[in-house]
Amino acid sequence: MSTDNLSAVLHCNGDLRLEQRPVPEIATDEVLLAIDSVVVCESDLLYFTDGFIGNFNLTKPMIVGNGAAGVVAKVGKSVNHLAVGDRVAIQPSVPCRNCDHCKQDRQFHCENMVFCATPPYDGNLTRFYKHAADFCFKLPDHVTMEEGALIEPLSLGVNICRVGDIRLGSRVLIQGAGPIGLVSLLAAQALGAAEILITDLEQQRLHLAKELGATHTLLLDREQSAEQLAKRVRSTMGQSPEQAVLDCARTNYIANLNSWGFLCSGGTLLGVGNGARYFRGDRERETKVHGVRYCDTYSAALALVASGKVNVKRLVTHHFDITETVKAFETFRYGHGDAIRVLIHVQPRDANNPVKF
Amino acid sequence: MSTDNLSAVLHCNGDLRLEQRPVPEIATDEVLLAIDSVVVCESDLLYFTDGFIGNFNLTKPMIVGNGAAGVVAKVGKSVNHLAVGDRVAIQPSVPCRNCDHCKQDRQFHCENMVFCATPPYDGNLTRFYKHAADFCFKLPDHVTMEEGALIEPLSLGVNICRVGDIRLGSRVLIQGAGPIGLVSLLAAQALGAAEILITDLEQQRLHLAKELGATHTLLLDREQSAEQLAKRVRSTMGQSPEQAVLDCARTNYIANLNSWGFLCSGGTLLGVGNGARYFRGDRERETKVHGVRYCDTYSAALALVASGKVNVKRLVTHHFDITETVKAFETFRYGHGDAIRVLIHVQPRDANNPVKF
Amino acid sequence: MSTDNLSAVLHCNGDLRLEQRPVPEIATDEVLLAIDSVVVCESDLLYFTDGFIGNFNLTKPMIVGNGAAGVVAKVGKSVNHLAVGDRVAIQPSVPCRNCDHCKQDRQFHCENMVFCATPPYDGNLTRFYKHAADFCFKLPDHVTMEEGALIEPLSLGVNICRVGDIRLGSRVLIQGAGPIGLVSLLAAQALGAAEILITDLEQQRLHLAKELGATHTLLLDREQSAEQLAKRVRSTMGQSPEQAVLDCARTNYIANLNSWGFLCSGGTLLGVGNGARYFRGDRERETKVHGVRYCDTYSAALALVASGKVNVKRLVTHHFDITETVKAFETFRYGHGDAIRVLIHVQPRDANNPVKF
Amino acid sequence: MSTDNLSAVLHCNGDLRLEQRPVPEIATDEVLLAIDSVVVCESDLLYFTDGFIGNFNLTKPMIVGNGAAGVVAKVGKSVNHLAVGDRVAIQPSVPCRNCDHCKQDRQFHCENMVFCATPPYDGNLTRFYKHAADFCFKLPDHVTMEEGALIEPLSLGVNICRVGDIRLGSRVLIQGAGPIGLVSLLAAQALGAAEILITDLEQQRLHLAKELGATHTLLLDREQSAEQLAKRVRSTMGQSPEQAVLDCARTNYIANLNSWGFLCSGGTLLGVGNGARYFRGDRERETKVHGVRYCDTYSAALALVASGKVNVKRLVTHHFDITETVKAFETFRYGHGDAIRVLIHVQPRDANNPVKF
Repeated sequence: MSTDNLSAVLHCNGDLRLEQRPVPEIATDEVLLAIDSVVVCESDLLYFTDGFIGNFNLTKPMIVGNGAAGVVAKVGKSVNHLAVGDRVAIQPSVPCRNCDHCKQDRQFHCENMVFCATPPYDGNLTRFYKHAADFCFKLPDHVTMEEGALIEPLSLGVNICRVGDIRLGSRVLIQGAGPIGLVSLLAAQALGAAEILITDLEQQRLHLAKELGATHTLLLDREQSAEQLAKRVRSTMGQSPEQAVLDCARTNYIANLNSWGFLCSGGTLLGVGNGARYFRGDRERETKVHGVRYCDTYSAALALVASGKVNVKRLVTHHFDITETVKAFETFRYGHGDAIRVLIHVQPRDANNPVKF
Repeated sequence: MSTDNLSAVLHCNGDLRLEQRPVPEIATDEVLLAIDSVVVCESDLLYFTDGFIGNFNLTKPMIVGNGAAGVVAKVGKSVNHLAVGDRVAIQPSVPCRNCDHCKQDRQFHCENMVFCATPPYDGNLTRFYKHAADFCFKLPDHVTMEEGALIEPLSLGVNICRVGDIRLGSRVLIQGAGPIGLVSLLAAQALGAAEILITDLEQQRLHLAKELGATHTLLLDREQSAEQLAKRVRSTMGQSPEQAVLDCARTNYIANLNSWGFLCSGGTLLGVGNGARYFRGDRERETKVHGVRYCDTYSAALALVASGKVNVKRLVTHHFDITETVKAFETFRYGHGDAIRVLIHVQPRDANNPVKF
Repeated sequence: MSTDNLSAVLHCNGDLRLEQRPVPEIATDEVLLAIDSVVVCESDLLYFTDGFIGNFNLTKPMIVGNGAAGVVAKVGKSVNHLAVGDRVAIQPSVPCRNCDHCKQDRQFHCENMVFCATPPYDGNLTRFYKHAADFCFKLPDHVTMEEGALIEPLSLGVNICRVGDIRLGSRVLIQGAGPIGLVSLLAAQALGAAEILITDLEQQRLHLAKELGATHTLLLDREQSAEQLAKRVRSTMGQSPEQAVLDCARTNYIANLNSWGFLCSGGTLLGVGNGARYFRGDRERETKVHGVRYCDTYSAALALVASGKVNVKRLVTHHFDITETVKAFETFRYGHGDAIRVLIHVQPRDANNPVKF
Repeated sequence: MSTDNLSAVLHCNGDLRLEQRPVPEIATDEVLLAIDSVVVCESDLLYFTDGFIGNFNLTKPMIVGNGAAGVVAKVGKSVNHLAVGDRVAIQPSVPCRNCDHCKQDRQFHCENMVFCATPPYDGNLTRFYKHAADFCFKLPDHVTMEEGALIEPLSLGVNICRVGDIRLGSRVLIQGAGPIGLVSLLAAQALGAAEILITDLEQQRLHLAKELGATHTLLLDREQSAEQLAKRVRSTMGQSPEQAVLDCARTNYIANLNSWGFLCSGGTLLGVGNGARYFRGDRERETKVHGVRYCDTYSAALALVASGKVNVKRLVTHHFDITETVKAFETFRYGHGDAIRVLIHVQPRDANNPVKF
């Protein structure tokens, strides 16, 4: 096997280098994967720009990348369900299996979760990567590696909707047609939400949201107060929304709106992304504020893509080779060319796709 | 107001007559409705052909009809949310509001539920009908009266899927592409089921199911054993389904198949319709058998239709005037002209529709 | 029937008078009740001291009282399940039955809920009071009227635990052994919480909490920081609690602690009472902030008392006659004589109790 | 370490022998346990008497025993949460971690579950036994090894109540005060069921049930019809139960009663044990039939015992040494000396208990 293991290593914020790393040794319950495609995620970018997220600080060089798909190159000896050559999507969150949460089928709350590219754990933007075998999901032949990598953000969208109790006939407000807002839109739609209003500061993003199935769009205006916005939301939807998902990925703009004033009684307010840390609940309106991590939504997200119910391809606006990683990050960071989702290819395009992307 | 109150009255099985009945007096919390459209339902037909369903026996003449929409003609004095002229869908199931189930937000289990056209209660295939005001759902202008009547079967489909825990990414088997199977299909699809295999003895119905969104269809063959069928189901879907909905509306054919053999471990088996009374659970495979009534799914069903997510119009194959009621029943009974859903118009077509059907 | 209808009427904050009011007329779906016992509640007190709660302002004289039991004196003509002489507990929250929440079995979120003694609606500290018949719960002979009145606070405790997902084996922190903390304790215990740590600033209250079943108690110290307190909580329980209920009835002291630092990942933080309005959620720890109202927990609370599983009698520390209402309020307000729950008797004690209190 | 590994090996039904077996080698994620106490379970007995349960057939010699506690003797090198000397309860059900159910936090439905002493897997009535480390639950010092073994049946009871949706204020009927009926009783009580009626053919067992917290008991009479029994149930409880748990461990007597006739509308019927295979659901009454396996209830069951909320010691009627295994099985089989739970000690009594049993 090749010993070339080119990896995208973040030394400190702003300092992302391509370096050789040793090919990892696997344990009996792990697999070694030849990575094919990686989607740049918000958290990758935040470590790149800031060097930390919340209490997680980059204190030593770390390989980035958490949404990826690869091909099995080696299997540990206690692994039965995968074989060399299998194409898999990689769930980056691996729970500890031992804490109270893990023991009670609430793994998404595991306190000791290993998460790719979250200090101190390495990510998967690298040629060879090892992973717990039971968190690799085999792809059907007609699903491309690129779609495999995109299961990661879609899985987050599915979880956001699950936590927010979005259901048949729901009226949903999504603030922000960015990378998180759009996967939430896809998931909300798949779950049977009847009305989905999506807002953004850029008309371009609203066009895409409309194409992806939003029933209403609303262009935000920084001059407007939260009260004025709430009024526009209500008049656009005919009544107050039941759930609001706030894509606060990189900015506090949306977070700083007093968004719960938009909601009907008992509504759920979901703040997602770094800007979401300072939300308040509202006792008067019975709203809730949730943090959002996921663990048990990967197979549902994969089923949605495999069955054709959800099309994640449309989210991809840019492709780069692993050698162009820094450029890929900059494109995602500044939204060059109306970037939504940016893919990094570790192997030649379509090398592992029976059906072309 | 007119005193013409032509009504379709079932005297005993086989004896359905059009008769004049007095226009009902309303109580303070009721409304009087000028009925517009009624969809013939399975239970209507069973009282017509057999005179009973389960322990409910027709012991005196009863007005038939339970899926209907009408226009408010009078409002009781404690009713605030409806006005004369409002167009409404009528939820036929009115719970008692007092029993333990009603008091614990489980009204669908109410033991004292009043259900239209279930002895001893009259139905709504009549010119003037009174109903509990809080079980009338106002229709938006762009929703037709015919669609309003079809909320009833769709609401059943929504409830079947809710009881069966059909969810994002589910693999669902629907046995029987009849009136119940098809509304289950529409609801399962709206809920994000990834794969839906529908079976029937008639190819014609499978074509419609495919058009309505089934991902797989399978033509049943009476010569096949349950084991052979299970094998075909598994090979068509790639693996065992998680949920099975059995449309046993009028026949025991599907009920008599040992259907739980089809399911994956922990699967849910839902028998719906008269033939479903004799199902057994299966301890080995952790399956469940559920009865199905509904009470809290009307507003979700209406939201699906109003938002355009679900198209119920395609289910309607025939239209009759109230004076042709017996012919309408016979058409539904024998499936003349590939009948799926048969509508009876109590007022001239489109008389109350701002947008034509 | 007597025309004496002495009522406790709040004219503005601080101005609570006993006055005659006309005996109410009932509608067809209501009952007239001869009130027997009323428990003074937090909201009664807050209107008395402040004249408002949140956005609810006292703008005209209002009869106070929301936790009460009475005897049926008249029944509306459409009421079938109650008869004159029946002894009932009165659920003070009556939902509208028409909004989306009511129609989807989520009545506790009803936006139009009528709530006793919440402006503009009168309460039940009066000799004769009318109420929606289906929100009156018949008491078994062995349950006293006083216990009937106490179903109200217990029902709140049950709802707090339901919203907070307290379950078999839960580790619960209750901050504040006051009127809300103690009913939460009773409910958490009944639900199978394995460990319940309760805190307070007064040792006296902790003794009662211990007697009622707390597994641990902790005396708060105003000098301690939230971090120090979190450390003590953890060392007392052996690990972090999963749920925290904050009794913020009248003070911001507990609300101002950064209480979510106490919780394990995924924990639920429930702020209850007036001081709870300014809580924040915490994205890092996946905590939630909930408002708390109830609608569907009355029958469960009554079942707990009727079966003897929960003893609410022990909460009662003081008894007054309706003519002593102001004194009763002052006793509750200042905690005179270690007051926890204060009862006001509208009829002679035990007049309607087959079994003495 | 000792090489003595005396094991209770079942060769075919009726042929249970004590034999030496090699001490097992452990994998990196396993621990080796020196077994202390084992409780004889229904399934052990059924393999002993019949040689099969359902489709599971004994085709080669198998070590029996599935409810056990032991002391860690060796740890695999990837195990971090356990150390040599730790006292643990052993969850006998180990899911595959890879199937759809495992990936969606529904491990209890895993199709590939390894279950101790279920062919082809060996059990733990042996001196040295290896197990997946993450399915070993550390015992606090004050919990005895015997109680550790009894977590297994209690965990089943907890799961039965979870599946059956037993909740605060529930009215529960438990048919059969045997080994399964009694753990269901303990769990239902802990969950806040308000009324629990337990039935049996033997008065002796009903006395114990009463002592353990049943609110009503009823002596069955084989001459009575199901209708007569249903009437007695209703008159004893005042109304119909909401849930019924049927302990059909070894006999079809209870299974053959048409038990769903006892239930209120929407009720849940849970058949547990070998006799439960032939239950039918009832469409008319909306009942459900469930199979029952468990996977995620061990930590809750342990928390109940550790906190003192549930006392499982009272279930133990007999103690034997591993060398008396056959006698222990016969005692359990025939109920000699009113046997309920029979413990087998693999090490000297209290050898590993800081606090005596």
